[in-house]
Amino acid sequence: MIITILSGGVGGARFARGVREHLRRSLPDAELRIIVNTGDDMWLAGLRITPDLDSVMYTLARANDEERGWGRIGETERASAELNAYGVGWPWFTLGDLDLGTHIARSSFLRDGQTLSQATARITSRWDLGALLIPVTDSEVETHVTVEGGELHFQEWWTRHRARLPALGFVQRGIEGAVATDAALAAIRDADVVLVAPSNPVVSIGTILGIPGIRDALAATAAPIVGVSPIIGGAIVRGMADACLTAIGVETTAPAVAAHYGARSAGGLLDAWLVDTVDASASYDVPTTAVPLWMRDLDTSAQLASDALAAARL
Amino acid sequence: MIITILSGGVGGARFARGVREHLRRSLPDAELRIIVNTGDDMWLAGLRITPDLDSVMYTLARANDEERGWGRIGETERASAELNAYGVGWPWFTLGDLDLGTHIARSSFLRDGQTLSQATARITSRWDLGALLIPVTDSEVETHVTVEGGELHFQEWWTRHRARLPALGFVQRGIEGAVATDAALAAIRDADVVLVAPSNPVVSIGTILGIPGIRDALAATAAPIVGVSPIIGGAIVRGMADACLTAIGVETTAPAVAAHYGARSAGGLLDAWLVDTVDASASYDVPTTAVPLWMRDLDTSAQLASDALAAARL
Repeated sequence: MIITILSGGVGGARFARGVREHLRRSLPDAELRIIVNTGDDMWLAGLRITPDLDSVMYTLARANDEERGWGRIGETERASAELNAYGVGWPWFTLGDLDLGTHIARSSFLRDGQTLSQATARITSRWDLGALLIPVTDSEVETHVTVEGGELHFQEWWTRHRARLPALGFVQRGIEGAVATDAALAAIRDADVVLVAPSNPVVSIGTILGIPGIRDALAATAAPIVGVSPIIGGAIVRGMADACLTAIGVETTAPAVAAHYGARSAGGLLDAWLVDTVDASASYDVPTTAVPLWMRDLDTSAQLASDALAAARL
Repeated sequence: MIITILSGGVGGARFARGVREHLRRSLPDAELRIIVNTGDDMWLAGLRITPDLDSVMYTLARANDEERGWGRIGETERASAELNAYGVGWPWFTLGDLDLGTHIARSSFLRDGQTLSQATARITSRWDLGALLIPVTDSEVETHVTVEGGELHFQEWWTRHRARLPALGFVQRGIEGAVATDAALAAIRDADVVLVAPSNPVVSIGTILGIPGIRDALAATAAPIVGVSPIIGGAIVRGMADACLTAIGVETTAPAVAAHYGARSAGGLLDAWLVDTVDASASYDVPTTAVPLWMRDLDTSAQLASDALAAARL
C-alpha cells in the first residue's frame, strides 16, 4: 500500500509523523511518500534554502526543535552572526549552524548539477525517515507577496513582517514553466490514498496544486483524496494561514477551505474532508467527517492518521 | 611612507602584526599593504576558501586562535560535523562555524560577480586591521602537489597528509594565465620598502612571485626589497616548508633560501636578507644582517620589523 501526503512545512511535518506512526503500528508494509511544497525555497547568501523539505526531514528524523516549532534541536547561530557582521543575508532570517550544514550540502549538490530531487535523496539518505521526501518540482518557483506599494519575497513577508502587512495576493514566480517531478506524479498515480495535510491551503498546498501536471494527476488517480482541515473553530491551528486565506478571499473556517479545495465529484480536489469535532455542525461542500484534529502528541497524531485512512475507506 | 609585505598565511600574518606594531609605535603615518598568496585557495563544498587571506585577516583583527595556530579563537565545528554526516567536503579539512561565516560571505560576493579583491575589501572592512589586504591575483590559481603515482590538491597533501608524502614538485594550476591585481602591482611600485615575510618560500612566496607581472614589478620598483628568513638554524620556524624546499631541490638552510631568492644585483629578488643570529656565520649570496628572528611576542615581532626596515636603510 502506498500512502501519499501533500505537505507544507511544520504542520504537514507533524501530520506526516503521525501517519508514519500509524503505519508502523497498523500497516508496517505500507510505503509513505510525501510530496513537499518548494514555493518557500530561495537562494540566500549563495545557499539554497528549502524550508518545507527541511521541516519535514528534521521532524521525521526527530532532529527538530519541538519547543521553538522550527529548525534543529540544540541549534546555535554562530555562523549566522558572522554573516550579519559582514552584512550578508537577511538579519531577520537566521540560519542555524546545524541547519547550515544541510544548506551547504544541498547547495553543493545543486552546483554539481544535481536536481533538487537528487540532492534531496542524498540529503535525506543520512536520516532514518521511514518516508520518501519528494520535492513537488525541481524547477525554481518562488512565492512573492503583493502588498500595498510593492511585492515582497514570501519569507520577508512571513518571517520579517510576521504576515502583518496586509497581503493583496500571491505571485508564484516561475510556476507557469515549472515541471512536476516524475516522483511526485508517480506518487499520486500509484497511491492507494492521497492525504492533504493540514498545511497552509494557499502558499503550501496551493503552490503544490499550481505546479503544472499536479492537478491533472490528482484528477486522474484512482486513489481517494482526503483533506485534513488546518482550521479548528475558525482559527488556524498553527502559522499565519489566515492572512493568506484573507488575501485570496477565503474565510478562515473549515467549510470555506473545503469549498476552496472543492469536491472531486464537482471537479475539485477532495473525496473526503476531515474537520474537528467543534466544526461538526457546519455544512460542507465535501463529504466530511468530524474527529479530534489537535495533534497534541504522537498518539493523537497517529489517531488522526487512522481517521484519515478510515475516511478513505482504507 | 608605504610598506608592502609579500605574505603567506600564519607566519606571514605574525610578521605583519609585528610590522603594524612597529609602525604604530614609530611611524604612525606609514601605510601598510600586504600582498597575500592565493595559491592555497580552493572551492570546497561550494565555498571559496582563502586560507592565507583569512589567516592574515584574523591575526591582524586579533580574532585568531594563537594556541592552535590557525583559524578563529573560540571556534566550534558544528556545521562541519553536519557536512561530514552528509558526506560533503573533506572530513580532514574542518570549516569552523565562525570561519564559515567568512567563507559564505566571500562566496556570496564572488557569485554576485565581484572579484576576489572586491570581496576581500568588503570582508576586511568589518575589521580594524590597520593594513590593506591585497590578493596577489583575482584569477583562480590552485597549487597541486606531484607525488609518486599522481597529483594531490595542496591542501590534501598539507593538511591531510601533513606534508609527509614525499613531494616531487608543485604545479600551480592556472598560473600562466593569471593576472596580478592592479592593487598588488601598485603596492610594489609605490612602496618605500618591500618586505618578504618569513613565509613558505615555495608555495607562498613562490606562488606570489610566479604570478605574471609580479617579478617585473619587483625588478622595477625603486623600493629596496628585504627578505626575512623562514629558517633558523637549519629548521623551519613554523609549518612544513622543509618538505616543499626539498621537493624543489633547495636545502633547508638560511643561505640556501637566500640563494634561491637571489640577490637583486644579480637579477634575483633581494636587496637585503635577515637571518637569525645563530645563522650569522654562514656565507650568503645576498647582503645579510643577523638579528633575533624568533617572534615570541608582539615586542620581539615589532623589533624584527624595525630591524627589517633598518636593513632597508629606512
